[in-house]
Amino acid sequence: MVVTPELVERFRSAKRVLFATHERPDGDALGSTFGMRACLRAAGKDAEVLIPGELPHRYRRLCREVRREMNAAKLDGFDLIASFDCANVARLSLPADITIEMLRQRNFVNLDHHAGNNIEAGVNCVVPTASSTSFLASHLAEESGFTPTAEAATLFLAGMMTDTGCFRFSNTDPAALRRAAELLEAGANLETIANEVFFSKPRNYAAFEADLMANYLKFGCGGRLAYANITPELLAAHNFDLREDEGVIDLLRELDGVVVAMLVHRNSAGAYKVSLRSKERRFPVGPLARSHGGGGHDLAAGLTLHLADFAEVDALMEREIAELLDNSGPAAQ
Amino acid sequence: MVVTPELVERFRSAKRVLFATHERPDGDALGSTFGMRACLRAAGKDAEVLIPGELPHRYRRLCREVRREMNAAKLDGFDLIASFDCANVARLSLPADITIEMLRQRNFVNLDHHAGNNIEAGVNCVVPTASSTSFLASHLAEESGFTPTAEAATLFLAGMMTDTGCFRFSNTDPAALRRAAELLEAGANLETIANEVFFSKPRNYAAFEADLMANYLKFGCGGRLAYANITPELLAAHNFDLREDEGVIDLLRELDGVVVAMLVHRNSAGAYKVSLRSKERRFPVGPLARSHGGGGHDLAAGLTLHLADFAEVDALMEREIAELLDNSGPAAQ
Repeated sequence: MVVTPELVERFRSAKRVLFATHERPDGDALGSTFGMRACLRAAGKDAEVLIPGELPHRYRRLCREVRREMNAAKLDGFDLIASFDCANVARLSLPADITIEMLRQRNFVNLDHHAGNNIEAGVNCVVPTASSTSFLASHLAEESGFTPTAEAATLFLAGMMTDTGCFRFSNTDPAALRRAAELLEAGANLETIANEVFFSKPRNYAAFEADLMANYLKFGCGGRLAYANITPELLAAHNFDLREDEGVIDLLRELDGVVVAMLVHRNSAGAYKVSLRSKERRFPVGPLARSHGGGGHDLAAGLTLHLADFAEVDALMEREIAELLDNSGPAAQ
Repeated sequence: MVVTPELVERFRSAKRVLFATHERPDGDALGSTFGMRACLRAAGKDAEVLIPGELPHRYRRLCREVRREMNAAKLDGFDLIASFDCANVARLSLPADITIEMLRQRNFVNLDHHAGNNIEAGVNCVVPTASSTSFLASHLAEESGFTPTAEAATLFLAGMMTDTGCFRFSNTDPAALRRAAELLEAGANLETIANEVFFSKPRNYAAFEADLMANYLKFGCGGRLAYANITPELLAAHNFDLREDEGVIDLLRELDGVVVAMLVHRNSAGAYKVSLRSKERRFPVGPLARSHGGGGHDLAAGLTLHLADFAEVDALMEREIAELLDNSGPAAQ
């Protein structure tokens, strides 16, 4: 079995399931929850996905009928609550009236592939070796006896593809590729995934990206760090919403010679959110992020800094990234 | 068997093999030829890949020891000549002293996945249902009894990934995904593929792309056609070489609402080269390209026009693409 028997048992016996996931949901958060919802509904169960905020544009057509509000009384209407793909209590996306403690007092389970997951539900199935939560969810569905519908297969595959960078990132493994083959055979619609998720960039996002790359791109660490400050002016010029930024950092990561890519933006509370990507396992950015209270994987991580301005953030991060690049082991052969 | 027994037999009995492929070789052309070369060399045979022109930047580290020159006398030193991934006699990349007839007079085989292949070798194994020639070559290696080395597995997988848009394009099938899993198990280095092929964009290419998207992007057919004229000035401003353009058209294809993407550039002979991509099977651009003497797949095709200027090319193509978009069947559900 890929997932734990305890988790399978909870899903088998549940009749009304509520899913929650992390803030600013990405393809894996949405693919795993909406995919499992489709399986449960096809099995005659009630299931809803709770997303208080807006969905990214590219997922709006794939992920319909979103549950936006919830309160304690309504929570009692569900006999199973599931957190999928959320590693961090602080990032679990819940309406103002709901706390994690209220979930923990109920039949609450946690499925994730992020190391260091601290959701602490009644059942915790955290598999850091799995390429994505959608991969795990597709196995949970199968092991629970739910046949994935074509819709579910499409959603699971979309989640797997977004989290593995279309099977390019280092988390890609033979199991993920074979699962993708099985999901295609179960009816996953690749044309829908490609056109909705990967080939549906609004024109203003393309203009934002072109402006970013032409006018905001900076380099550090002798060209091994590429970074950009996403200023309020840049966002405003293109009416761009950073919740949509899933792929923006890859524009920096994909540059030749770059080992670490970094995006910095100031959130509405005035704190600086730093996104980091590394191209090489020997230069992991996860520990660096965690040393500042952030989190993530070795090659994809994030943190928040409370500093005076972009320049202070850039200076601190460039210093620490230079140390990382200098102190790590010899080049892979 | 995936490939024909005749082809397997020729490779089994060969001792010195020369590979050729199409002009402006892409990842599949290079992955299939260099991957098979690695298998043959590991089996103690001599093998070379003939590429008279320059290799795209992103493949230079993956594809070393390129054979650049050849003449009739030297051709006799090979007991098997193989054209891989080349659909069209006119596009087979050969030095000036070599003609296709000289190849046809020798032990000459042809492996490809493009419908309409007209190479006409002694053995022709053309499998249009295969996602890539690299997929076919990896099966040819196995069926011929050659164990793919880690290097060969890396090259085959790189070719499969480039030709399927990282398993997003409609040619992706379960067989391709399972083969990718097997190649990973055979030692294919995904970090190398990702970093060399997909995350190795020179800075001037990124600047070219940003300029293109910010200043050259045009729309037609009510937003369903996105196109750009790649002028000599644009190329010169960024010292950009169009042989490297494998991914440029995807910048247009990935826009929301766009169904057909088109790039037009003028080649050194003054003719206009038109690249076309479609997002939907019900709007195939292959027939349109073939009606002008071009070729390709339903969703990816190209043609050459001899007209007076970019404006004439744009006008003709927009008219024909509008017809295609208007006259095709109802929307897929």
